[in-house]
Amino acid sequence: MIIVLRPEATKDVADEIMARIEELGCKPLYMPGAERTVLGALGDERILGQLRLDSHPMVEKVTEILAPYKLVSREFHPHDTVVSIGDVPVGGDKFTVIAGPCSIESFDQLRDTALAVKASGASCLRGGAYKPRTSPYAFQGLGLEGLEIMQKVTAETGLPGITEIVEVSDIERVYDHASAFQVGARNMQNFRLLLELGKSDKPVILKRGMAASVKDLLMAAEYIVSEGNSKVILCERGIRTFETATRNTLDLNAIPVIKKRSHLPVIVDPSHGTGVREFVNPMAFAAAACGADGIIVEVHRNPAEALSDGAQSLFPDQFADLMRKLKPFVEAAGKEL
Amino acid sequence: MIIVLRPEATKDVADEIMARIEELGCKPLYMPGAERTVLGALGDERILGQLRLDSHPMVEKVTEILAPYKLVSREFHPHDTVVSIGDVPVGGDKFTVIAGPCSIESFDQLRDTALAVKASGASCLRGGAYKPRTSPYAFQGLGLEGLEIMQKVTAETGLPGITEIVEVSDIERVYDHASAFQVGARNMQNFRLLLELGKSDKPVILKRGMAASVKDLLMAAEYIVSEGNSKVILCERGIRTFETATRNTLDLNAIPVIKKRSHLPVIVDPSHGTGVREFVNPMAFAAAACGADGIIVEVHRNPAEALSDGAQSLFPDQFADLMRKLKPFVEAAGKEL
Amino acid sequence: MIIVLRPEATKDVADEIMARIEELGCKPLYMPGAERTVLGALGDERILGQLRLDSHPMVEKVTEILAPYKLVSREFHPHDTVVSIGDVPVGGDKFTVIAGPCSIESFDQLRDTALAVKASGASCLRGGAYKPRTSPYAFQGLGLEGLEIMQKVTAETGLPGITEIVEVSDIERVYDHASAFQVGARNMQNFRLLLELGKSDKPVILKRGMAASVKDLLMAAEYIVSEGNSKVILCERGIRTFETATRNTLDLNAIPVIKKRSHLPVIVDPSHGTGVREFVNPMAFAAAACGADGIIVEVHRNPAEALSDGAQSLFPDQFADLMRKLKPFVEAAGKEL
Amino acid sequence: MIIVLRPEATKDVADEIMARIEELGCKPLYMPGAERTVLGALGDERILGQLRLDSHPMVEKVTEILAPYKLVSREFHPHDTVVSIGDVPVGGDKFTVIAGPCSIESFDQLRDTALAVKASGASCLRGGAYKPRTSPYAFQGLGLEGLEIMQKVTAETGLPGITEIVEVSDIERVYDHASAFQVGARNMQNFRLLLELGKSDKPVILKRGMAASVKDLLMAAEYIVSEGNSKVILCERGIRTFETATRNTLDLNAIPVIKKRSHLPVIVDPSHGTGVREFVNPMAFAAAACGADGIIVEVHRNPAEALSDGAQSLFPDQFADLMRKLKPFVEAAGKEL
Repeated sequence: MIIVLRPEATKDVADEIMARIEELGCKPLYMPGAERTVLGALGDERILGQLRLDSHPMVEKVTEILAPYKLVSREFHPHDTVVSIGDVPVGGDKFTVIAGPCSIESFDQLRDTALAVKASGASCLRGGAYKPRTSPYAFQGLGLEGLEIMQKVTAETGLPGITEIVEVSDIERVYDHASAFQVGARNMQNFRLLLELGKSDKPVILKRGMAASVKDLLMAAEYIVSEGNSKVILCERGIRTFETATRNTLDLNAIPVIKKRSHLPVIVDPSHGTGVREFVNPMAFAAAACGADGIIVEVHRNPAEALSDGAQSLFPDQFADLMRKLKPFVEAAGKEL
Repeated sequence: MIIVLRPEATKDVADEIMARIEELGCKPLYMPGAERTVLGALGDERILGQLRLDSHPMVEKVTEILAPYKLVSREFHPHDTVVSIGDVPVGGDKFTVIAGPCSIESFDQLRDTALAVKASGASCLRGGAYKPRTSPYAFQGLGLEGLEIMQKVTAETGLPGITEIVEVSDIERVYDHASAFQVGARNMQNFRLLLELGKSDKPVILKRGMAASVKDLLMAAEYIVSEGNSKVILCERGIRTFETATRNTLDLNAIPVIKKRSHLPVIVDPSHGTGVREFVNPMAFAAAACGADGIIVEVHRNPAEALSDGAQSLFPDQFADLMRKLKPFVEAAGKEL
Repeated sequence: MIIVLRPEATKDVADEIMARIEELGCKPLYMPGAERTVLGALGDERILGQLRLDSHPMVEKVTEILAPYKLVSREFHPHDTVVSIGDVPVGGDKFTVIAGPCSIESFDQLRDTALAVKASGASCLRGGAYKPRTSPYAFQGLGLEGLEIMQKVTAETGLPGITEIVEVSDIERVYDHASAFQVGARNMQNFRLLLELGKSDKPVILKRGMAASVKDLLMAAEYIVSEGNSKVILCERGIRTFETATRNTLDLNAIPVIKKRSHLPVIVDPSHGTGVREFVNPMAFAAAACGADGIIVEVHRNPAEALSDGAQSLFPDQFADLMRKLKPFVEAAGKEL
Repeated sequence: MIIVLRPEATKDVADEIMARIEELGCKPLYMPGAERTVLGALGDERILGQLRLDSHPMVEKVTEILAPYKLVSREFHPHDTVVSIGDVPVGGDKFTVIAGPCSIESFDQLRDTALAVKASGASCLRGGAYKPRTSPYAFQGLGLEGLEIMQKVTAETGLPGITEIVEVSDIERVYDHASAFQVGARNMQNFRLLLELGKSDKPVILKRGMAASVKDLLMAAEYIVSEGNSKVILCERGIRTFETATRNTLDLNAIPVIKKRSHLPVIVDPSHGTGVREFVNPMAFAAAACGADGIIVEVHRNPAEALSDGAQSLFPDQFADLMRKLKPFVEAAGKEL
């Protein structure tokens, strides 16, 4: 940690702060300059953070040297982590395709869609029973009934099921009906939920929040891992920017950034990342090209009838086309479908 | 609602969509042009939204004419709503000052701070018992103990207490210890929480999310009001932009925008809006000047020791200075402190 | 164009506006509703824009139906345009790689770099003589001397040269020394410069501004094409967002969006798009995967000595590695290197 | 400057970098840690910037301690600078109101508007002759004819005139017809233009770019001042964010930030900052409240007929209302109109 003091800070202030650094078992450094005194503090940033030096009236600026997360960092664990959803590995040499509707609307709708995506080569099924919707007047999901449909369809098709969790009190119910939890963008910093999921033994797909930096995303993952559940799959799904041509701005830069900083697998959601059906396939290819470990794609047996997110859902034949064309990109990136 | 069809859409497509509009009891309009056919649909946007026409493969673009929220809109309810926290009115001709520490750290800390802000003229006390923190290694709040401290201090000082709620399961507990719920920026779209708060009879301060538009904020408020609780106070606290000189970008434009669109009171949080102690006072003055109904400000008896947000917390004498200088701005805006 | 009137607008206001629409030779439509009157105006948005109806005190909102640009739109010209830089085609089935240093620093530096990138397979050379730098104390480019070096090196290597133009008064000079003009992100809306380049017969690489939407970029291109120069190559180079892990946020969504809306070729600059050397190659692969017509990459014979943008410049062997690995991505996207 | 080395950096790398720091006459510091070696470099950041250490393959991160600008900084010059436009002071204890149309459209239009704003108390006249417009099909300004109208009207009314400059080659012409240059948001980083204006003896109003941080704005000002012209007035006019309820997001936080960092006067443009006529007045009051030195407001004798920016232009009686209500806010902020 680097601490820049205000111009008016005296030597006593510097001494006081250095003493506090030393008390924590870290190593203080003194760098007096003509215009500012700068202090260094060498040690674990998580410990140094306890000093809360940014509150000090004589401190101008505090800069971290190391990352404030540890368990999810590549420095802590240099090799790629592989997380399995059911028996489907995510990470390492594999490129995993998760597909399915935004919402579970009926048994037939989920079953038809599941059979279609399986036939095209998807290896996991997505589908929401609890839907966080911007408007209270929009379809909010089938709830428990949806979970039960999910369980039946995954049993029939053999595809592991992934569904969104929005509340601590639903964890058990979702646990019983699906192979993985999905934490949506709006809940990425629902820390109570993260802590509880950290006590689970099922994988968590953690989606990046619309205003979350990569650092924020890794800190959110650290919440889960620090409670004992290291089965976290990160998911880039677009951030909010001034551009309105697409629903969100898919930040594919985040993929190599995350790969450098963390050992966790990372997948891409080109459906939410663009919000427009016809842009999903090119962005799925781009995700594979820049090193993602998989994609999660919205497919509906008939998007024109979808109760949510129809505009970004693929028709089954568009998804078949995606899978056909995806392979060479995945292979060029050194992975296999 | 305006529906622009794709160039290749036939008259049959237009007829099909117009029939669906009519089925909902709304009025369709047909506007064929040289390059595009445009359809109009006149009626309640909440009902028209059920058509989900953006999913239709022959629809290029859908634009709302009216707002998708209703109960919170000024058209629905033209006069300013006044919401009372305890016996302190927020909205109308009043300018309300809520002050206190970010976190409740001890009985003495909260009591000292409460007495100081009361002496300077604050009318409500803030203080968090459940703290959503970016890092799992940071102070997470005292929980129930914090709530009990809050209750004791508010009883002693007579200041109504406001505290953050992060989970549905805490609602009852918080209800018993405070006069108003605060929903933080990270939970603005925790819709399950909003729905439950909608069943309460205590006021809710709803903070704008970091990536939330004013429309998103009003939709979130609609969740609460649609369940029966119309005691909602909106709060602008800064959005996330590329600017790093301040912690967030306080969007004061939002104040007149909200005032035009909604009858709900709106306050400003210049502490989170800037993240820097010395910028809090000028932005508090600006909030009063552009028509806000109050401010919520972080004050700590000694910010250098604060367990959270110390860098943006005022010293008690800075708060006293704020209150002294605030009055003429409030009066110039036609309100009273 | 759709015009939503204010609730208080009378029938006379609607009639007056419809008369003005008709005067322009466009077709007005009247849609009275319970809460708002909506008017439609069918015709060329460029002409309708002259009405400036957003200024009208009785108009609440104006929405375009068609795009406000025409010559650059795919509707106007459905087939992909191929623009040639020297004898190197950009667009259509080709994937073009432009490489070279950020700044021209010396004859040897540019020559060494040019030979290296040519050996690895680049087909055009980039290098700046006039450098727009954030700080007045940073290296500002060699100016005319740089242009002369560019000319010598392109003559020797046979690679067509591309260099940035920052001022109308430099157009002739740059024209004489390079095969294509580059307009940087900071000048994307330097309309005087665009108009003058519109009178040239050499190609223009137009980089997207840091705060420019795709629509803004296409409008800027329309400036050039409307003056007669249709040799415009668009370039996505990252936009400014809250994310600080990378210098900019490369918006690859823009590639399929532009491909849908415009017939002009579009390339990607992964160097500025990330700002970090080790992220350049994955993002170059992603650019190829999502349908870009080429890339423009910063390479320096020794980035550690670069006078500008060294942190994002590739070492020659990193560029060789990029070219080796790029081919299968380009081919999977249906193009050839 | 703080230099964090990569984990794999050897002591030799540290020595080499420290030697380069010393060569520049600055003071190097060595801080070896368990996980990273950190180097300090004490001295002028402008000089240290020449090291371009961010390019070094063994450097992970470089952080400045001091600002990279100097002449515009408050540390360099602690007292507020007052810049005079004609005989009207901007800065210090004064609050200056600049008003007028977006574009000069005719002699009568400018004269009528000028007389109206003067009668209400404006002290300077704005009006554009060269208009940078997003669309090539929009009104581009009257050019020289507009400048001549400006000169006549300012002579008649006694209001000093301010007009936009978009090109180096127009400097002389604009100089002869106006009392101050305005550099628009799109030209904030047109460095060639800034350098030439730096050689002038007339004041420059420098508007913040839509994607420019406060630091970028101050660096742009440094370009002008470093050439000898210290008569720079900064202008906050809104940045580009995801919020679409307003044309831009007026960043009033920037006012106290600039006041802390720089001695230059700073004004606010609530017209572009909101883009909506009815939000201009509250944001003008807020600008005064948070410490701005003035405002620049668009007023048109009849906004419904304005050839540009009519939607955000005030009617003369709205401006009169603004001026009537502004006074107490200005006085509460310790300034005078």
